[in-house]
Amino acid sequence: MVRNENLKEYRLKQVEYCKIHGRTDEEQELLPLFYQGSGVEVNVTGSELWIDLEVDYDVHEPWVWISLNGAFLGRQMLTAGSRSVCIFRGMSPDTVKNVGFFRELQAMSEDDGCHLLVKGFRSDGAFLPVRDRRYKLEFIGDSITSGEGTYGAGTDMDWLPMYMSASRNYVKMVSDALDAEFRLVSQGGWGILCGWDNDPRHNIPSRYEKICGLAGGEKNERLGAGKPYDFGSWEPDAVIVNLGTNDASAFNQPAWEDSITGQTFQQRRNPDGTYHAEDIARLKQAVIDFLGMIRRNNPKSHIVWTYGMLGYDLTFVLTDAMNVYRKESGDSNLAFLQLPATTEEMVGSREHPGEKSHARAARVLAEYLETVL
Amino acid sequence: MVRNENLKEYRLKQVEYCKIHGRTDEEQELLPLFYQGSGVEVNVTGSELWIDLEVDYDVHEPWVWISLNGAFLGRQMLTAGSRSVCIFRGMSPDTVKNVGFFRELQAMSEDDGCHLLVKGFRSDGAFLPVRDRRYKLEFIGDSITSGEGTYGAGTDMDWLPMYMSASRNYVKMVSDALDAEFRLVSQGGWGILCGWDNDPRHNIPSRYEKICGLAGGEKNERLGAGKPYDFGSWEPDAVIVNLGTNDASAFNQPAWEDSITGQTFQQRRNPDGTYHAEDIARLKQAVIDFLGMIRRNNPKSHIVWTYGMLGYDLTFVLTDAMNVYRKESGDSNLAFLQLPATTEEMVGSREHPGEKSHARAARVLAEYLETVL
Amino acid sequence: MVRNENLKEYRLKQVEYCKIHGRTDEEQELLPLFYQGSGVEVNVTGSELWIDLEVDYDVHEPWVWISLNGAFLGRQMLTAGSRSVCIFRGMSPDTVKNVGFFRELQAMSEDDGCHLLVKGFRSDGAFLPVRDRRYKLEFIGDSITSGEGTYGAGTDMDWLPMYMSASRNYVKMVSDALDAEFRLVSQGGWGILCGWDNDPRHNIPSRYEKICGLAGGEKNERLGAGKPYDFGSWEPDAVIVNLGTNDASAFNQPAWEDSITGQTFQQRRNPDGTYHAEDIARLKQAVIDFLGMIRRNNPKSHIVWTYGMLGYDLTFVLTDAMNVYRKESGDSNLAFLQLPATTEEMVGSREHPGEKSHARAARVLAEYLETVL
Amino acid sequence: MVRNENLKEYRLKQVEYCKIHGRTDEEQELLPLFYQGSGVEVNVTGSELWIDLEVDYDVHEPWVWISLNGAFLGRQMLTAGSRSVCIFRGMSPDTVKNVGFFRELQAMSEDDGCHLLVKGFRSDGAFLPVRDRRYKLEFIGDSITSGEGTYGAGTDMDWLPMYMSASRNYVKMVSDALDAEFRLVSQGGWGILCGWDNDPRHNIPSRYEKICGLAGGEKNERLGAGKPYDFGSWEPDAVIVNLGTNDASAFNQPAWEDSITGQTFQQRRNPDGTYHAEDIARLKQAVIDFLGMIRRNNPKSHIVWTYGMLGYDLTFVLTDAMNVYRKESGDSNLAFLQLPATTEEMVGSREHPGEKSHARAARVLAEYLETVL
Repeated sequence: MVRNENLKEYRLKQVEYCKIHGRTDEEQELLPLFYQGSGVEVNVTGSELWIDLEVDYDVHEPWVWISLNGAFLGRQMLTAGSRSVCIFRGMSPDTVKNVGFFRELQAMSEDDGCHLLVKGFRSDGAFLPVRDRRYKLEFIGDSITSGEGTYGAGTDMDWLPMYMSASRNYVKMVSDALDAEFRLVSQGGWGILCGWDNDPRHNIPSRYEKICGLAGGEKNERLGAGKPYDFGSWEPDAVIVNLGTNDASAFNQPAWEDSITGQTFQQRRNPDGTYHAEDIARLKQAVIDFLGMIRRNNPKSHIVWTYGMLGYDLTFVLTDAMNVYRKESGDSNLAFLQLPATTEEMVGSREHPGEKSHARAARVLAEYLETVL
Repeated sequence: MVRNENLKEYRLKQVEYCKIHGRTDEEQELLPLFYQGSGVEVNVTGSELWIDLEVDYDVHEPWVWISLNGAFLGRQMLTAGSRSVCIFRGMSPDTVKNVGFFRELQAMSEDDGCHLLVKGFRSDGAFLPVRDRRYKLEFIGDSITSGEGTYGAGTDMDWLPMYMSASRNYVKMVSDALDAEFRLVSQGGWGILCGWDNDPRHNIPSRYEKICGLAGGEKNERLGAGKPYDFGSWEPDAVIVNLGTNDASAFNQPAWEDSITGQTFQQRRNPDGTYHAEDIARLKQAVIDFLGMIRRNNPKSHIVWTYGMLGYDLTFVLTDAMNVYRKESGDSNLAFLQLPATTEEMVGSREHPGEKSHARAARVLAEYLETVL
Repeated sequence: MVRNENLKEYRLKQVEYCKIHGRTDEEQELLPLFYQGSGVEVNVTGSELWIDLEVDYDVHEPWVWISLNGAFLGRQMLTAGSRSVCIFRGMSPDTVKNVGFFRELQAMSEDDGCHLLVKGFRSDGAFLPVRDRRYKLEFIGDSITSGEGTYGAGTDMDWLPMYMSASRNYVKMVSDALDAEFRLVSQGGWGILCGWDNDPRHNIPSRYEKICGLAGGEKNERLGAGKPYDFGSWEPDAVIVNLGTNDASAFNQPAWEDSITGQTFQQRRNPDGTYHAEDIARLKQAVIDFLGMIRRNNPKSHIVWTYGMLGYDLTFVLTDAMNVYRKESGDSNLAFLQLPATTEEMVGSREHPGEKSHARAARVLAEYLETVL
Repeated sequence: MVRNENLKEYRLKQVEYCKIHGRTDEEQELLPLFYQGSGVEVNVTGSELWIDLEVDYDVHEPWVWISLNGAFLGRQMLTAGSRSVCIFRGMSPDTVKNVGFFRELQAMSEDDGCHLLVKGFRSDGAFLPVRDRRYKLEFIGDSITSGEGTYGAGTDMDWLPMYMSASRNYVKMVSDALDAEFRLVSQGGWGILCGWDNDPRHNIPSRYEKICGLAGGEKNERLGAGKPYDFGSWEPDAVIVNLGTNDASAFNQPAWEDSITGQTFQQRRNPDGTYHAEDIARLKQAVIDFLGMIRRNNPKSHIVWTYGMLGYDLTFVLTDAMNVYRKESGDSNLAFLQLPATTEEMVGSREHPGEKSHARAARVLAEYLETVL
């Protein structure tokens, strides 16, 4: 191999034009990519481009995907260490290449040691401005929004980073269809009130107002994860919520018990199988409160609560809460939209929606958004 | 032409095995086909089969479609008169042919003179038993369920029988997918509370409990249209409601005025564009009452209220009413299901859902029904 | 029914603007529709339109399909007699409607008594000019081109008119895709050299130069079927041949024997299963001769020989003959194009290509023609 | 990161069960992957698996793709050096994982320094037998078979490794559809007689009988590229040739000139645009000779010559040559099959067939092979 001697190293702060995707603390020297779909996008000339990274984790390694001129080019695991990834080599130096480098793995509430930091680039070209997309969309969700199951074979059941994605996700598909950029907050297994296993700490609203309330530990703290998120810095045209699937699951699970305090939590069913009225009431209140929180932080955004890709069970509960919120708040800039349930033929790995199911849901959602944006 | 001298004429009552589709008064000597999808189905041997009909109308002529062994064979207009339609000729006499003869045109509330009566068959074969399908489904709806727009070019805008159908309709597609037979009550332009133009007489609930409350006039009375429908005679596994589209439209229309009494009716919007609370309240009450009526008549059926093929506007109103009904009645055997909105590419004639839109909606609905039946 | 008193009767010759589709003798007082896809097309105002017909047959009744503004409206059997078919009623009188009335049934070499004649129209509107399509295409073929199997259930095996069509045929699909009008000569079971059963009379070339050499008997003679076809009257941009399927079949059949003369004919296989060299030689010569005949009559047309929808067996034989023809004639304005073979999932009735197979083939063929026209 | 201390290093020769894909010299200590689709497949238990590689190139870096249990997991560039790639981490140790590691980049006749060598694996599990697929298929082709254009945006025109693939290629799609394993020999720009630019050295037949006659230079020599390929070691059920596209192109290009000897070569057109007879003659002879070579080496394989994905221009030339070959050799175990031409909507990068075009061609080819295998 002949080394390209013309590569110049740029710390990220030195790159004049670089669009940062996803919620993050842009003041950090090394840019943390907390969420799937978080990443950097550049327009660059030159024959060769590398990205310099800092990668670490205790358990779950990050995966990334790379786009060139809008097309999917590659997807790979990143093992721990300080490393450079070559994005392209040998290209015609004068043309402008649009390059995207994106995290595939969701924010990891279960691995405080999981970090993916962008240090900078190495290039023999120049960086040019990146165009803004037509719309801004924020997505809030669970494993569906984390793209769990969008990679992997139908038989694969391990819970692993490689099965999650931003590259085959309805979030990306909707954003591409509408020429939108997106930010998101999502976590597999989490809900509005509690997680799939009744763990009441696993509710998305409690983390929504931080940059990345899902990333814990001291290092993430230093990386700005716990800072309040500046909602004014990026005002979405629409906020799309896709929560409820794990809250529905909780009703079928045993009580969660805090191993330290012994405190328990459970969404109960009545002996006849119907949902327990009190538990429905607190779930509805959580929906109402969360809508208020979203609205407070996004005064002008259209809010769409989407639901159904893994079953329509809570349709009445969610709409009931939304109706109460609408009447109490007078807020009418919101909608409820079912996304078609995943069929056997559309299942991906981990019994989650596969690419075909994401594509079908994305189409319905994008079509809807086109009518309101 | 050489005449087939072996044809034997059968009055319908003489045909030992004939499955009657659609709500009708089976005691009539000549069988009235009131609704689209109403018809007769026979298994018959012989080389040739004709059906004898009595057709009349003041304005709107009926259309019919014919199936042979489950496949679409033809579709045609029927002009007024006593007439025979040849269904097949020259077939191998010994094989059993499954033949369906179905009305395409909805029940015509606007043409009391519109009648399509089956007098009998002419055949040189024998009639054999017709198998029952796996499920029974009842559909209740408006122009979407009447298949308006499923035939005709995108530019066609006249309101005419030829553009309606049961042959390219989501009702048929869902029924085929589930191996179900269906009955239905639908009327273009009608709603739950009032018609698209605020006409309060044009509400489906007021006609639901008769055999065909949509067919008026003296002759239809004689044909049994106004008799109470015997719900016990055919118990559907599911009742699918697809109403709300015209109730949403009413909010955008001027008040309706009765030309005789001067009485008016209007679903109003507030100056800020939101729906008037009182008018929403009476619409919701109409939903609640109708759900009660459906349940009373179909104690064991799963009820699905579907909505969205022409816009999701009333989602919150419908779900709010359904939530009230659920709480008041304790009835939990019901669901709300959005069907994907029709896009420009999927529009048929008369700015109504075309075949592709019906197919997409049918798939989502059939997939849902498969999970509950 | 209230009769429309404003209908005026037009003999076909009186209709100022009427586009005639398909090869026919336009000098006849009653216009014979000999082939599937043959028909009349008018642009007409008024509220109502009827077409007056004369129908007869010994065995096989004609079927027709009707288009309105380019969309499929209906399809029906026509039983024998002098009859009027209503095409539309009650339309807005001032708009111009484009109406097509087309035969579905192929020319019937097996039923000399089969006639479908257009006598004229009844209308309360005016007839206006009909636009020409962008291209003219001539198709020559067998049962595939006759649309055999495009209607009917997969299990249907009778050989009957109702299973043939011009409405679901690759011929129509290709023509629509290219905005072309078409004429055709085709006959189920026939080949280049002989029929599927080795009958040497059943070769298309022997009939190609007459208006309709497939329609025999005295009455067809009077209707002009046997007149030489005036190739100069309608010069196709391309001639598409789709023959060879029955010639391949002949190699698997017993010898044909003339019941009167005792003369026999057979395309033979060698003991090892390969084709007999002499028989291949005469088949090739038939291809070469037919290409010469087509070229002689269509000096400027691009000729495409398509093949494969029911198997690729004769690919080498056909291309070998075409190569000889090319060298001998110096004619290079021709091509050979395989159309994808019908799979089990795409089969229609009578083990023939169904609608999906026709659609797939049509796409490949239309794409090809777009590159050469 | 916590290091997995249980990983055991295996040199490839130590791995008891490892299926090697693609033509290679299996006696090498480090296994060379010469062709796209060449690779290693293992069934392995354990929680973690790495593959150890040796990578080098002068200009063009190799890309690889990874499958897990048959599903696409990742695709990445490999820069020069001795490196380990982690395939999975953290999996349930007891389950058996099927892993494939495959080269994406074609054999590089233009870069003698390009090497991708598999040294071995690191695993904490055990290796188990890998099942054989149902069929064996050999593919011979040019840039289409090299998957050029299957990655990258429509506007991308650089000639680069990242745009080639075995992962989105009709070769893989056909093999998957038939449950086949494949080997292949292909080179972008090469032909039967000469390359797209008339370079007579760029003909596939001259390299077909070596393990990898496309990989030059001393190191490739040492790696066994130049050794005769042992056809008996892997007898394909079918050999699929997809050549002719570049031979067609040559007729539109200026003469090639050897910069050293001054020797020139050109496939000429006559002044009227037709192909020059002598040049067609030598092209046909090249086809005939190549068919003989393929048959000699694969006595029992069905040979299919496919053609058309980038235009049908040489259909008559190819079939003419094949007809001569058939007659001269008596060999009838071969076929000619057109694959549908790529439309604008199906184009990938570099004006080559994109994924949709590969999928359409793969379907037609797989359907054909199913009828003969």
